[in-house]
Amino acid sequence: MAELNGNLLVAQSGGPTCAINASIAGVITEAGKHGCIEEIYGGLNGILGILNEELIDLGDEKRSAIEGLKYTPAAALGTCRYKIHFVSEEKIAAETDQKKKTSLQKKRDQALKDMDRLFEVFQAHNIRYFFYAGGNDSQDTSHKIHQEAERRGYELRVIGVPKTIDNDLPFTDSCPGYGSVIKYCATTVMEVGIDVGSMATDDGSVCIIEVMGRSAGWIAAGTVLAKRGNPANPPHLILLPEVRYDREEVLAKIKATVDAYRYCVMVVGEGIRDSEGNEIGADPTKRDAFGHPLLAGAAWKLKDLIEERLRTKTRTVLLGYAQRAAAHCASLTDVQNAFACGEAAVKAAVEGQSGYMVKIIRSVEDGKLKWSTGLQPLSEVANVEHFVPTEWISPDGFLPNEKFIEYAQPLIEGEVRAPIEGGLPKYVTLEKSRVEKLLPPRA
Amino acid sequence: MAELNGNLLVAQSGGPTCAINASIAGVITEAGKHGCIEEIYGGLNGILGILNEELIDLGDEKRSAIEGLKYTPAAALGTCRYKIHFVSEEKIAAETDQKKKTSLQKKRDQALKDMDRLFEVFQAHNIRYFFYAGGNDSQDTSHKIHQEAERRGYELRVIGVPKTIDNDLPFTDSCPGYGSVIKYCATTVMEVGIDVGSMATDDGSVCIIEVMGRSAGWIAAGTVLAKRGNPANPPHLILLPEVRYDREEVLAKIKATVDAYRYCVMVVGEGIRDSEGNEIGADPTKRDAFGHPLLAGAAWKLKDLIEERLRTKTRTVLLGYAQRAAAHCASLTDVQNAFACGEAAVKAAVEGQSGYMVKIIRSVEDGKLKWSTGLQPLSEVANVEHFVPTEWISPDGFLPNEKFIEYAQPLIEGEVRAPIEGGLPKYVTLEKSRVEKLLPPRA
Repeated sequence: MAELNGNLLVAQSGGPTCAINASIAGVITEAGKHGCIEEIYGGLNGILGILNEELIDLGDEKRSAIEGLKYTPAAALGTCRYKIHFVSEEKIAAETDQKKKTSLQKKRDQALKDMDRLFEVFQAHNIRYFFYAGGNDSQDTSHKIHQEAERRGYELRVIGVPKTIDNDLPFTDSCPGYGSVIKYCATTVMEVGIDVGSMATDDGSVCIIEVMGRSAGWIAAGTVLAKRGNPANPPHLILLPEVRYDREEVLAKIKATVDAYRYCVMVVGEGIRDSEGNEIGADPTKRDAFGHPLLAGAAWKLKDLIEERLRTKTRTVLLGYAQRAAAHCASLTDVQNAFACGEAAVKAAVEGQSGYMVKIIRSVEDGKLKWSTGLQPLSEVANVEHFVPTEWISPDGFLPNEKFIEYAQPLIEGEVRAPIEGGLPKYVTLEKSRVEKLLPPRA
Repeated sequence: MAELNGNLLVAQSGGPTCAINASIAGVITEAGKHGCIEEIYGGLNGILGILNEELIDLGDEKRSAIEGLKYTPAAALGTCRYKIHFVSEEKIAAETDQKKKTSLQKKRDQALKDMDRLFEVFQAHNIRYFFYAGGNDSQDTSHKIHQEAERRGYELRVIGVPKTIDNDLPFTDSCPGYGSVIKYCATTVMEVGIDVGSMATDDGSVCIIEVMGRSAGWIAAGTVLAKRGNPANPPHLILLPEVRYDREEVLAKIKATVDAYRYCVMVVGEGIRDSEGNEIGADPTKRDAFGHPLLAGAAWKLKDLIEERLRTKTRTVLLGYAQRAAAHCASLTDVQNAFACGEAAVKAAVEGQSGYMVKIIRSVEDGKLKWSTGLQPLSEVANVEHFVPTEWISPDGFLPNEKFIEYAQPLIEGEVRAPIEGGLPKYVTLEKSRVEKLLPPRA
């Protein structure tokens, strides 16, 4: 494979995690080792910033800032929810409703315009290496960019870097960000559990902790680690979006738990569904930028149900954004894997690969767990969701089992200790020196 | 003062904190140094356990467990919300509504019965030292027990140990538990702030973080430390229960913040009120064990208001019990002060004092902050609430000012590092070996 000289562009997409910056640090660090990579640019706010030609010169950043990215949460380059809506001609042809057909055509036209603009920016800045860290949608975008580069005969090496607290990308052992979010959530569930347990009286009480996870229950499931092998320890119930729950059975299980322990600490994924398949916490009147219904009320609705039916005092905790930003409680294993994914992406691209996502691989060597990385074709990854396997969940659906624990435990090992200043973690902010714009503004 | 030989009883009350066990460790450690203290007992689940003669022998606990209490959250002895309702004869005489009068008389009768029972337990187990760690209600209970001991001529030394994340006890510089809760909440607000900021686009977004604090806004105010002196840093607004807020002014301030920064991160105390004095998050249909209305919805109600009026996407975080249990992010200063309060309580009692609450004192020596303890008569402490002073809040009521920051900053200094096992903090559990019951069950 001939050496490809040119500039590198890296960007972040979707909801941040506390390990995504470690992947960027991995990209920058590895890129610095290869002479063929001339400039190292970052796209501000993901694909949106690239479309607007808002690039920053990462080569200008201090080495200490790059180092600090390993323990700094959120998206240091900025991120976005903007999505290029790729619509196939087949889908448009098959649509019989004229209004919907027009809407699909509009999306296709916008995607074509966006793609043209992206390649204008790539060409103007001689971008030859493109890395995009994100979840399912972002891997799909990377795949389309890779295909488009081939179609245009524009020499570009595209590698997707996995990122999502949801842990729902296929093929990779786990997704950078996931180990940290479950370390924080399990710590929180354990602490809340001890607290609620220490207040338990004969009156009984319930505490519901709602965590993220629209369709995959990986985060909720991960809090099972707080049990540390003791069935009496919280969480006593974990409700996953993968399972359908009968309300009466859930109530009976909560009652049995309160009867046994005088309290019940339960964890619910935001997207849990009842036996009819309806989302328990959905607000049907609101939708996010991707058209998914906004979820935020599963814990509240369950609280009302429990207080009405069981007459047991119920409190809720809604961790929301706090869980994915909690770098103060990040997993070292997770952050190291995230960094390795960034490095591996650059290595693969320099070696001539394109159209792949980096994946994390676990293996056992001399009885010791070993982490490494591999590559998976983006064509196989894009838009495939990976759920908690049924065989990792107890038959009644109320707790992940030993197989899940064996999988999840290694992901939370090790602590990341950010420097502390004035009693608070000292995270880094990038200088973000702008790369001069060479194009007219986006139409 | 003659040496008083006998046994010690310590108990915990009200909502736990992640520093209350450090106070118990201080009591036990100091008690071990004084020959006049024969047995060291703990009351299980606060006053309720004492009434039920459920005592545990703390002298039987491993030294490592006592040491571990310094970093273990929740109430290691168990706690309760049970309150002895002391009702004065004057209050009963003044009540004209016959139904209410009867209810008051019932409470008085129960309190008299409870008090008799308490002293039966004290006498049966030769309790001569009584320490009660708690907030306002618990200090009131300690005060009544002290008075009752004097009235009965039963030699008993009663010292209240301050504890409350709410920081609303008077006379003490701060309350053990407070430094840790604001260290955790400020860390969380900072992390969420970086996260939301990194996603900010021209559409704008709002994130509301709701923290505890029914009538005092100390916890909400403490999150101002996350700004680290930069007005652009979150939190951009902090709403306190001490202030009355005009909804239109709040909306205008949020809009101005989103216009300036493209996002707004705000913190609200659960008990915030509108300009008519109505609690924004109150659920008038539900009350807690003390008859206070249950609060849990301020963030939700504001979210609805913002989305409806400003059309800005708004997310919420409800930290709930997680904030007071977050020992993984505890303040070393706080834990050390909590421990010192326990030690000081025992020292004072051994020296012959009774009827006092330990208070924390800060002073400056050679330009360096120094922490010590003192005593305040319980008669002056009981049922007095301490609020965030008006002169520590900005004129518009939207942020605590420099005076508050100067006060709060030292309280979050220093980290407590609990041992870690399998990626999670390893907290201790007491053996709780029961002291043999000597009395018939409580009537």
